[in-house]
Amino acid sequence: MPSHSPWIHTPPPEKSFRSIFRWGDPHTFKHPNPRLHAMLKETFGLGDRDFLTPRFTGEERVSETLPVPLPLPFIQAMEKAMGPEQVQRDAFNRIRYSTGKTTEEALALRHHHTEGITDLVVHPRHKRDVQAIVSLCHEHRIPLSVYGGGSSVTLGHRMEKGGVTLVMATHMNRVLSLNEEDHAVTVEAGISGPDYEAALNEAPKRFGALRPYTCGHFPQSFEFSTVGGWILTLGSGQASSYYGDAADLLLAVEVITPRGEIVTQSVPATATGPKIQDIFKGSEGAFGVLVSVTLKIFRKMPENTRRFSFIFPDWKRAVAASREITQAQCGMPAVFRISDAEETDVALKLYGVEGGPLDSLMRFSGYRPMERCLALGTAEGEAGFSRNVAKNVRRIAKKFGAMGLTSYPVHKWEHGRYLDPYMREDLLDFGIIIDTLETGVTWSALHRVHDSVRAFIKARPQTVCMTHASHFYPQGTNLYFIFIARMEDLDSYRAFHREIIERILHAGGTLSHHHGVGRMMGPFMEKQLGGESMELLRAVKKHLDPHGILGPGVMGL
Amino acid sequence: MPSHSPWIHTPPPEKSFRSIFRWGDPHTFKHPNPRLHAMLKETFGLGDRDFLTPRFTGEERVSETLPVPLPLPFIQAMEKAMGPEQVQRDAFNRIRYSTGKTTEEALALRHHHTEGITDLVVHPRHKRDVQAIVSLCHEHRIPLSVYGGGSSVTLGHRMEKGGVTLVMATHMNRVLSLNEEDHAVTVEAGISGPDYEAALNEAPKRFGALRPYTCGHFPQSFEFSTVGGWILTLGSGQASSYYGDAADLLLAVEVITPRGEIVTQSVPATATGPKIQDIFKGSEGAFGVLVSVTLKIFRKMPENTRRFSFIFPDWKRAVAASREITQAQCGMPAVFRISDAEETDVALKLYGVEGGPLDSLMRFSGYRPMERCLALGTAEGEAGFSRNVAKNVRRIAKKFGAMGLTSYPVHKWEHGRYLDPYMREDLLDFGIIIDTLETGVTWSALHRVHDSVRAFIKARPQTVCMTHASHFYPQGTNLYFIFIARMEDLDSYRAFHREIIERILHAGGTLSHHHGVGRMMGPFMEKQLGGESMELLRAVKKHLDPHGILGPGVMGL
Repeated sequence: MPSHSPWIHTPPPEKSFRSIFRWGDPHTFKHPNPRLHAMLKETFGLGDRDFLTPRFTGEERVSETLPVPLPLPFIQAMEKAMGPEQVQRDAFNRIRYSTGKTTEEALALRHHHTEGITDLVVHPRHKRDVQAIVSLCHEHRIPLSVYGGGSSVTLGHRMEKGGVTLVMATHMNRVLSLNEEDHAVTVEAGISGPDYEAALNEAPKRFGALRPYTCGHFPQSFEFSTVGGWILTLGSGQASSYYGDAADLLLAVEVITPRGEIVTQSVPATATGPKIQDIFKGSEGAFGVLVSVTLKIFRKMPENTRRFSFIFPDWKRAVAASREITQAQCGMPAVFRISDAEETDVALKLYGVEGGPLDSLMRFSGYRPMERCLALGTAEGEAGFSRNVAKNVRRIAKKFGAMGLTSYPVHKWEHGRYLDPYMREDLLDFGIIIDTLETGVTWSALHRVHDSVRAFIKARPQTVCMTHASHFYPQGTNLYFIFIARMEDLDSYRAFHREIIERILHAGGTLSHHHGVGRMMGPFMEKQLGGESMELLRAVKKHLDPHGILGPGVMGL
Repeated sequence: MPSHSPWIHTPPPEKSFRSIFRWGDPHTFKHPNPRLHAMLKETFGLGDRDFLTPRFTGEERVSETLPVPLPLPFIQAMEKAMGPEQVQRDAFNRIRYSTGKTTEEALALRHHHTEGITDLVVHPRHKRDVQAIVSLCHEHRIPLSVYGGGSSVTLGHRMEKGGVTLVMATHMNRVLSLNEEDHAVTVEAGISGPDYEAALNEAPKRFGALRPYTCGHFPQSFEFSTVGGWILTLGSGQASSYYGDAADLLLAVEVITPRGEIVTQSVPATATGPKIQDIFKGSEGAFGVLVSVTLKIFRKMPENTRRFSFIFPDWKRAVAASREITQAQCGMPAVFRISDAEETDVALKLYGVEGGPLDSLMRFSGYRPMERCLALGTAEGEAGFSRNVAKNVRRIAKKFGAMGLTSYPVHKWEHGRYLDPYMREDLLDFGIIIDTLETGVTWSALHRVHDSVRAFIKARPQTVCMTHASHFYPQGTNLYFIFIARMEDLDSYRAFHREIIERILHAGGTLSHHHGVGRMMGPFMEKQLGGESMELLRAVKKHLDPHGILGPGVMGL
């Protein structure tokens, strides 16, 4: 880093608040580059002196001691069942495992405000441990929450009434079997994205497979999320348009519920009543503890990947072209993203395109700043398949007035794909919030939702609003909103954030396309699904979890 | 027909038993051709004199009067709510709407044996009628069953305790809306396959759409099934490998349950908890009455269809090639079928290939009768996509030792695709049963299931057993068994049939891939799903249908 960089470039101190709320690997950084920094100063009317001293950085060590208000016989029984080394009751770990990655959690912890902290953290070693934990909590009526990779942005780990948090990733992270003949793998739910993908990539060496495989699921949280979390929150990877969402990848589950154990059979398709595993997709830990999953896998063929990017004259045409691509039945691109005019403007800054020869060419060709829209993506699969997808994308993009921009922006995007979340704390250190909301929309609702949310965010002075669509279906897509604003007060942030959710719902978007519900969206669920559907979810929960111990408050249940 | 044909070639008399159990359109026939007839005579050691007089043809008129053991106030309330012209209580209609298309129902009705007959048949005109019917039945605790197209082969319409049967196809068969922008259509659940497909094909004329569309779902029962039935029984069309199974096509549902009305939103994807409409997929009427569905649609581009067929040296290589095709990520064929050696033998007879020049070429090239296996299919979608699929299918087939057979067998298959079921009654008229069972299998279970079922069927003297696989996934396929045997006694038929199911389950297949559960497979469901999964289905049912009035016995619930 240049010596005058204002950004904190040291790992968060051990056991500090910052080590809890900061994204990702302690030794990895992605700071705003000088162009983005300049844009922020201009947008917010700030000078260099406003970036001299980071504030409320949370670098202080968590030093409080918190009481453990659980019955002693319960704690003793837990320690006996699990071994005492798998049970933690210190404040740091309790806060750590009760905290996800929302902006409001970061804001609170920067001020050492803690709420909804679990009482006991346990690290099951295997399925029998999970059975013991679920039984004990059920018997003693103690709330039980499951922590996977900790990347929840929906207050999924908050425990208003305390209780026990079960950490899946510590031990339950093994590949149980790879069935190459069936293109299927069974893993423990706590395995992380990178460990899972590495196991598949190295399938020949590790499992004697004939070829390497890929999981096809690469959410932005990939490095810090677990496979179980993908399924339970209905995650979506950046290449989902081709590989499918997490829900599409699931073949079978093994779940421990207070009522008993549910194991489903891995078959390609079956007409034997409603599919039991479907009921657990997106159940966010409220119906049981997912101990293992069987998922589809795909051949890893990076040699066939084709990269493309385009500039469209405007958002309307970028959207229309995307719709045509998804409905043309030519095969789906893997990664595909279109950015609206404001996001395009920022992206061209970040990628170093603005002011360069590509920018000149675009301007010369009539693609005007704050109107033009960037699209980028990849085609994957068998060589002829990916060639045909790329060919059709090109044909359709041109039909809607786009100009090709080489694969350069795609490489830039790929390089930064997992790094952007690191910038949040840099901005928060200086009182600037960067936050995201996202929604699933049909094509016919897309412009209504986009216009309504943008109008609301942009009505606030000095507020950046960037939008992209990044998961595509013949029926619609996902709209992903990013806003940047100066907003240090938690209450006004919350009010602003919740109003955006109301706008999305009112315009016909869903509460979430791939972040899930948690406790943040929970209060909106009845409005989203309707009373009778909520009653049905409650009935399922009542059956599987009669004492209501699992993830209280999650999904509004 | 030749004058010496033994087959009945007159429509079943009006209001006869035969008119109930016989497949399809009364004026359509497909008789065994002379080659198949010769094969049957040889297999069963029969002569021309055995085909002189059809037996137990069921051509007699249904003349009995059956009591209506329902409370009079209930009947009156129903007639008041619906109008008396929508309520039937005569024996013919009650038997008709309590009967599906299983062999055992045909055998019973040929002897005028009726069991499980509904008490009252009602034809709702619109959603409000359905609400009234469900309320009345709930209030009076009267069993309620839903009849779609009547093509159930799982005793889905049998009413052991009588009650009311609601017929969806009579009036509730309208297209409610076509949303071309979203590639989505909403229809009443009672619309038939052909009416639905015609509406989509004629979308420009009927809805002012820019292009014609197709539903992509063409089960063998297409002409005599309803769209609601496809969803509720988890049907699968003959082009499912490309278009998806019925479950994949569903976007939203509107269901009337005794508890209330459930309506879900049509969105391409959402991460807002377990998907409510998933719970209704495959629920076979046990959770509520499906009044409308929103489904994905596809562009109709028949000009891009490519047809191919191949002969493989043996079943092992046909299966291995199919697996490679599904896992190559080159795009999926639409129709794709492989026949085992015995089915290939019969098919080559039926298609008129046996003994002809193509047969000589095959024999000369080393493809031996009773070893060689036929494969046929189509590729659909955008022109480049279907070209690439066909190219890869060809490449892979050759790699596994196959020889191309032109598109001739595909045309023959397409011509007969909906007609084969008509042959059943011709055979039953002379005491020969032709029946089918099918199962979902992983690739790794396929040979075990095939070997086990074949060994059992072929251990019975003079029994034909043909098998094909016809719905493909990267994880496996469907095995479809057809047996032909002389077996006039219902009990021994049932024992034989149920033992095949046991064999399938024991070898690792599912109870059904696309026929559903009904009351035939119901008793096996606990074994298939496990006790805890069955309890979960029971809990869902108990919530939605507290008095247990909906489809009693269906799915083992």
